[in-house]
Amino acid sequence: MKPCVVLLSGGLDSSTCLAIAKSEGFQPHALTVLYGQRHQAEIDAAKAVAASQGVTSHRFVSVDLRQIGGSALTDSIDVPKDRSEGAMSGGIPVTYVPARNTIMLSIALGLAEIVGARDIFIGVNAVDYSGYPDCRPEFVREFETLAKLATKAGVEGADFHVHAPLISWTKAQIIQAGLALGVDYGMTHSCYDPDDGGRPCGRCDSCRIRIKAFESLGMTDPVMKRASRP
Amino acid sequence: MKPCVVLLSGGLDSSTCLAIAKSEGFQPHALTVLYGQRHQAEIDAAKAVAASQGVTSHRFVSVDLRQIGGSALTDSIDVPKDRSEGAMSGGIPVTYVPARNTIMLSIALGLAEIVGARDIFIGVNAVDYSGYPDCRPEFVREFETLAKLATKAGVEGADFHVHAPLISWTKAQIIQAGLALGVDYGMTHSCYDPDDGGRPCGRCDSCRIRIKAFESLGMTDPVMKRASRP
Repeated sequence: MKPCVVLLSGGLDSSTCLAIAKSEGFQPHALTVLYGQRHQAEIDAAKAVAASQGVTSHRFVSVDLRQIGGSALTDSIDVPKDRSEGAMSGGIPVTYVPARNTIMLSIALGLAEIVGARDIFIGVNAVDYSGYPDCRPEFVREFETLAKLATKAGVEGADFHVHAPLISWTKAQIIQAGLALGVDYGMTHSCYDPDDGGRPCGRCDSCRIRIKAFESLGMTDPVMKRASRP
Repeated sequence: MKPCVVLLSGGLDSSTCLAIAKSEGFQPHALTVLYGQRHQAEIDAAKAVAASQGVTSHRFVSVDLRQIGGSALTDSIDVPKDRSEGAMSGGIPVTYVPARNTIMLSIALGLAEIVGARDIFIGVNAVDYSGYPDCRPEFVREFETLAKLATKAGVEGADFHVHAPLISWTKAQIIQAGLALGVDYGMTHSCYDPDDGGRPCGRCDSCRIRIKAFESLGMTDPVMKRASRP
């Protein structure tokens, strides 16, 4: 069994990504990067998902991007609500966190070097979130090139592989793959703007995309059973 | 005047780099990344240097790499002392922090995007620290390529430029350039293992390299006047 690092936010995508890494025979070291999101709910979800699926280790690394700001997730910018599909696909949204995936992959790369892993899993998805530049295949491939030059392991001959198994899937396909692997989506948390009790709003882009995907499969998103009042 | 981001540790190299950025007409936003180094002395030095040279802003972003460890700077690994030049040039030292410069440049990239800068200054140096993979020109160039793909600004047409003006200079050349620009090296802090009072040890690779460089210029390293007992 080979070690790998899995970036685990506790959301629907990264939780599925962890299950895929395990199904491919990897021993996952989970890494949750706390970048100043406003919610404890994500941390709780990441812990629950890692515990339920089984991981070799689970680390939490904080990087306080609120010092930089510039995003609805790290600054006092309102999270958009009740947007139509057309509005969601109209450019890069205010929930974009500048350089977020570069920062998260960099920390994952440091951890990979230390645990002797050459494989990093990230649950980016270019279909439902086509607006985020750092969710595109060309970004992921470029990071692999950088990783080789950036590290002691790379200089010594290692090739790093960034796995983005969800990158070209629809949200419904991601859910189907996860359900087949036993992922409990009731444990996950994707909402950008939960209430104080950690309940999802049901109205931000992230909630709406997953609600619709579950509906398209004839199901109800299990986290919406505990949703806050709209 | 164009804005830029300068990674500022408060050490000799980054303090010189800040002076160079200013001399080239940039308005510098200083960024100090606290990655779990063991010393308040670096923070104090960064603050003093930024204040003395004048910056547009100065941010401190913490990313706790002690959760990952694997380096003498972030883990309970002894910092080597009294090493000869031959020993120093013999491979990547234990003070290497996995993916450190990738992580720091990523955060600088996020800040650059937010302040509208396209230029990032980093005081890496490939001569005296030939052991660190992420201090090489090929690494810096590759990060520029990644930056364009990783960001909203890049997608919209911006090209990011990572300036590493010290990369091919000797430590003595760096000091000469800095002195010509008025850098007060007595404010800087480069030691890997200062005592509790923040005084440099005078014996780690970082201290020895700068002591020797000042000596080669017929000078005494000003911070050694407050050095701890060897």
